[in-house]
Amino acid sequence: MRVAVIGASGYTGLELIRILSRHPQFEISVATSEQRAGQAVGAAFPSLGGILDLDFEANDPERVAQRVDFAFTALPHGASAPAVASLRKAGVPVADLSADFRIRDVGTYEASYGSHGAPEWLDSAVYGLPELYRESLAATDLAAVAGCYPTSVLLPLVPLLRAGMLEPGHLMVDSKSGVSGAGRKLEADYLFAELEGDCRAYQVGGVHRHVPEMEQEAGAAAGAAACITFVPHLLPTTRGIATSIYARPVGGLSAARAREVLLDAYAQERFVRVLPEGQAPRLSSVKGSNYCDVAAFADERTGTLILLSTLDNLVKGAAGQAVQCANLMCGFPEDQGLLEVPIAP
Amino acid sequence: MRVAVIGASGYTGLELIRILSRHPQFEISVATSEQRAGQAVGAAFPSLGGILDLDFEANDPERVAQRVDFAFTALPHGASAPAVASLRKAGVPVADLSADFRIRDVGTYEASYGSHGAPEWLDSAVYGLPELYRESLAATDLAAVAGCYPTSVLLPLVPLLRAGMLEPGHLMVDSKSGVSGAGRKLEADYLFAELEGDCRAYQVGGVHRHVPEMEQEAGAAAGAAACITFVPHLLPTTRGIATSIYARPVGGLSAARAREVLLDAYAQERFVRVLPEGQAPRLSSVKGSNYCDVAAFADERTGTLILLSTLDNLVKGAAGQAVQCANLMCGFPEDQGLLEVPIAP
Amino acid sequence: MRVAVIGASGYTGLELIRILSRHPQFEISVATSEQRAGQAVGAAFPSLGGILDLDFEANDPERVAQRVDFAFTALPHGASAPAVASLRKAGVPVADLSADFRIRDVGTYEASYGSHGAPEWLDSAVYGLPELYRESLAATDLAAVAGCYPTSVLLPLVPLLRAGMLEPGHLMVDSKSGVSGAGRKLEADYLFAELEGDCRAYQVGGVHRHVPEMEQEAGAAAGAAACITFVPHLLPTTRGIATSIYARPVGGLSAARAREVLLDAYAQERFVRVLPEGQAPRLSSVKGSNYCDVAAFADERTGTLILLSTLDNLVKGAAGQAVQCANLMCGFPEDQGLLEVPIAP
Amino acid sequence: MRVAVIGASGYTGLELIRILSRHPQFEISVATSEQRAGQAVGAAFPSLGGILDLDFEANDPERVAQRVDFAFTALPHGASAPAVASLRKAGVPVADLSADFRIRDVGTYEASYGSHGAPEWLDSAVYGLPELYRESLAATDLAAVAGCYPTSVLLPLVPLLRAGMLEPGHLMVDSKSGVSGAGRKLEADYLFAELEGDCRAYQVGGVHRHVPEMEQEAGAAAGAAACITFVPHLLPTTRGIATSIYARPVGGLSAARAREVLLDAYAQERFVRVLPEGQAPRLSSVKGSNYCDVAAFADERTGTLILLSTLDNLVKGAAGQAVQCANLMCGFPEDQGLLEVPIAP
Repeated sequence: MRVAVIGASGYTGLELIRILSRHPQFEISVATSEQRAGQAVGAAFPSLGGILDLDFEANDPERVAQRVDFAFTALPHGASAPAVASLRKAGVPVADLSADFRIRDVGTYEASYGSHGAPEWLDSAVYGLPELYRESLAATDLAAVAGCYPTSVLLPLVPLLRAGMLEPGHLMVDSKSGVSGAGRKLEADYLFAELEGDCRAYQVGGVHRHVPEMEQEAGAAAGAAACITFVPHLLPTTRGIATSIYARPVGGLSAARAREVLLDAYAQERFVRVLPEGQAPRLSSVKGSNYCDVAAFADERTGTLILLSTLDNLVKGAAGQAVQCANLMCGFPEDQGLLEVPIAP
Repeated sequence: MRVAVIGASGYTGLELIRILSRHPQFEISVATSEQRAGQAVGAAFPSLGGILDLDFEANDPERVAQRVDFAFTALPHGASAPAVASLRKAGVPVADLSADFRIRDVGTYEASYGSHGAPEWLDSAVYGLPELYRESLAATDLAAVAGCYPTSVLLPLVPLLRAGMLEPGHLMVDSKSGVSGAGRKLEADYLFAELEGDCRAYQVGGVHRHVPEMEQEAGAAAGAAACITFVPHLLPTTRGIATSIYARPVGGLSAARAREVLLDAYAQERFVRVLPEGQAPRLSSVKGSNYCDVAAFADERTGTLILLSTLDNLVKGAAGQAVQCANLMCGFPEDQGLLEVPIAP
Repeated sequence: MRVAVIGASGYTGLELIRILSRHPQFEISVATSEQRAGQAVGAAFPSLGGILDLDFEANDPERVAQRVDFAFTALPHGASAPAVASLRKAGVPVADLSADFRIRDVGTYEASYGSHGAPEWLDSAVYGLPELYRESLAATDLAAVAGCYPTSVLLPLVPLLRAGMLEPGHLMVDSKSGVSGAGRKLEADYLFAELEGDCRAYQVGGVHRHVPEMEQEAGAAAGAAACITFVPHLLPTTRGIATSIYARPVGGLSAARAREVLLDAYAQERFVRVLPEGQAPRLSSVKGSNYCDVAAFADERTGTLILLSTLDNLVKGAAGQAVQCANLMCGFPEDQGLLEVPIAP
Repeated sequence: MRVAVIGASGYTGLELIRILSRHPQFEISVATSEQRAGQAVGAAFPSLGGILDLDFEANDPERVAQRVDFAFTALPHGASAPAVASLRKAGVPVADLSADFRIRDVGTYEASYGSHGAPEWLDSAVYGLPELYRESLAATDLAAVAGCYPTSVLLPLVPLLRAGMLEPGHLMVDSKSGVSGAGRKLEADYLFAELEGDCRAYQVGGVHRHVPEMEQEAGAAAGAAACITFVPHLLPTTRGIATSIYARPVGGLSAARAREVLLDAYAQERFVRVLPEGQAPRLSSVKGSNYCDVAAFADERTGTLILLSTLDNLVKGAAGQAVQCANLMCGFPEDQGLLEVPIAP
């Protein structure tokens, strides 16, 4: 099956190439990049030398649509919507890695991201978190692949909200992310010398754009409005998200019961590992892989349930999850091309 | 003034040497280390070559007491109490960096740390956080230098608790610490290859020994029992603590008002910097220095006050704070020997 | 084909598990570890959770020999020889990752490593660098997998020595290695806090044990004694070796001609990438993969040819190369299970 | 003594502020930055909050000259020469951190750096390496502060060249530098995600601009033309240079004799530490300090003398060395304001 990677030279796009180039069913036929158009992929990015024999090209959705059977769009928020619309109009199924089709309510989307470029396609989009929406994803032609932070928050949280075990209105989420989450931004803040050994909170005060997405899905799981205080932090490493959630239990605090609910929810899941009792997830255990590790702890003294998760933001938080969605959409085994073992040490 | 560093070859001890070797009033006459006894300081630790012309010696409190006018004890919890008692009995004033004299209630101490070796000296000890206990420290001969995590929590928290602006019973604290906080432990978990690019929570569930210390001082500030959910995390760097506190406001949420209270509290403080509105503290801005940077934010949607702080765990979280206490105890200017500028980049 | 990983809990052993667990032909039936015997692989090493359903067991070569068709031995130098001898006596083909069968001359081996435990098997061993010994490896039952530093030195060097373009007696080699090269050694020198941001030479003065191995193979390529000044350095990262070789040309200095010789030698090689003119290899372009990137430069002013290479010491420098050898020994496609794309960024 | 820092917002300029703000004799009266003009120093760079109460201003050499007694110029190569000329014409002594006045021969300078903006001031400039040119620096009003790489090469090399113990025409220099050496360049190559865990050679083939400077001073020491093959490498850390030099001995190889010559040369030097026999310099032992650690080793088998050095490129390789020069020029104790102890761990 011939696929296109639209926006292939960003970190997420390169990760799609890394994963897709080894996928047994998908073959990359088109890789677009405005900045790199005309350059060979392996010349522009030496890690990909000898891996993919293709030149980047400028994005022309109509021409692309004629040459592929499926498209991954890894464009910035806002820029993605019209590109997706073009591809969809031409009949090409799309896994979109931007936020443009994740939020069902246009008003909520526009409050965070500005004017929406293709609201007419919102209804047909399915939120791209396979562990929650497997059946719908198998039946759609447009997956709105879940964001990196929301994936790290929703995988540990949703089963417990569905079970009515947590108050959805009092959730504190403290997330720590590797720097690649910001993309290849040419700002002084992202230079090596500025970030080595640094750690800091950013976008503090509920202003991060991923909050509406988290609350939409957490609320759906709880059957009631969710309210999430979310503070993201930057870690001095490239890949990975570690999330700690502080929640108030409903009907008694029990880490063991929370763990059972998680184990039940994820018993058949290939990519969610519920850790043994007392073991906290580590970033180093998921790097380079499509795994999300989750765990539940209780602070008996304070009556707080603590949920922890780690994932690789470029894999389970982006490109890996997109391929997982695409596998479902195309009727392939869901884990096809995604079995890479975490790199440790 | 001749001083001893007892337990001088651990990370905290070496940091005391780093600071004291440039202090205009203190002169290191004794540096003890059981493992390194007989070795020259500069031979054992090449960074100190040419800095301090002294050999490590085994600790013999009575002999040490005769040769110094002041002692810094940087021994493990439990081992410190008897050493401090010997020095105090011999009339030597002590700044103790262990937890042994921080917790006023022996029962509370023993629940976390085991049997106390010198409870008779507890009453004369003053909690070693100069911004809170300046006058008492100036009048004592035994400072129980505050712990690294507690310092990062109490400096942003105490002024607001004193002002009655926060509910002391519902505090969530998510701290991230550099690896040096664990000391020079020979465990596989602390090897470079295990920690590069890693991040993980540890001692989750209210079991970290610093919790009683935090609650003691937070409670004293609030005039009511404090209840803190505390989850420490390990960062892939050597130095520094970044703390994020999630609190419920009393009498209305206002970041501006919180910031004013912090500014008032720390207007005259040399080592606490209240950051401009909207600016979050960074680890990289305090490394190598005795500063603690603090900031207050509000999440209006969720009604949560968010307090942030960063400090260097080996300086303001340990050796620097000990010297600050010692300066007060000896009647020297409080910032003597502590004006080192943060190393950035 | 059932395989054993002997010494499976060290960094090299874990990397063998990482690679072999996805190999289409090999199936890990036995993983030995004295320290971890009885523990489940995924419990002991969380990154491998859900990957390999097996318990570590103590090594008992005779029992192991009955249960597998092939063995990878990743034991320390000296300890490997007798284990290999037992397996070979029982008819099991072996890819040995230690140095025990790399050096043909027993005296030379013993000068560096001490008494040899199974010299009778030396004659049947083939040096495990497939790019140099492909045919012999396909015909042997004992591969002495090349060392990490020697691989990084020999791949750029051997084609030029074979072509008579370099003086074999005047080679300066400056190598920089990630910390995982030292294994999981519980020494203070390898703690995170000691190595973050550090860089230093070690074993300076021609005393590194890999020198005889390099000179043996460089000399064989040149048809004359090779003499290598080798200084290894430690980098503040976990994986990777970057090697810079300073050589005197024979018959005129020309980077272009050197590059042509490398291109000719490696035109058909899957795992050696000769970089475009003027491009220096990067560690970040090979991490997690079996690639070795090489390049040639000339310093016209000084008449020096400069050869550069990078590889992942745990893959092409150890486990990947072992699997590459094993593929040849077993008649599988040489790149089977080794097509993992480098992880970048 | 009032001083100006011209070009104060680059990494070298900020390091000058870090050091000068604690200097007992110098007081920063002017800090210029075109990009940051009008901003308060502490607002623009939070690590300097509360340290220096000054606003950046645009550079106007004539106005600056009236307000200071001494100037440090930390401008890019080429831009520095005219600024220095203006200051000198106005009678202000200058320590210049660019390359503009380091190379005595204008033709040699222009081959590397382009047209020289103020060649008339070359004759009055003294090469700013106090260990070599102490007396001349004390008598000049223009110090051309030595480059970071050259300092790391010349300090171990010059005493041996002066003693006639090395062939000056066959020197191989392999240097590894932290990323801050490139300055705060907004290029994708210097982003954190591109450099974490990376290592690579750059400007291979004798094209690095520091080569003429090294050869000028090495040749002067040897009394004969020096020829240096120099390959710089980028390390995955912010600060520090580690240099390894491979040299041919004259009159017999002896590490002990080489060490004696170094010890003799540096016995009275405050900032050069000749390490004990067999101990290699570490980056982590010099960070944040003005030290350069040096050591000599012999490879008896190959007849090669190996010289090793480490220093902090922003201190002894730039700002610290500039202050050391300025102390000499102003008649202050040479180590004034430079006694900061290395930060380790």
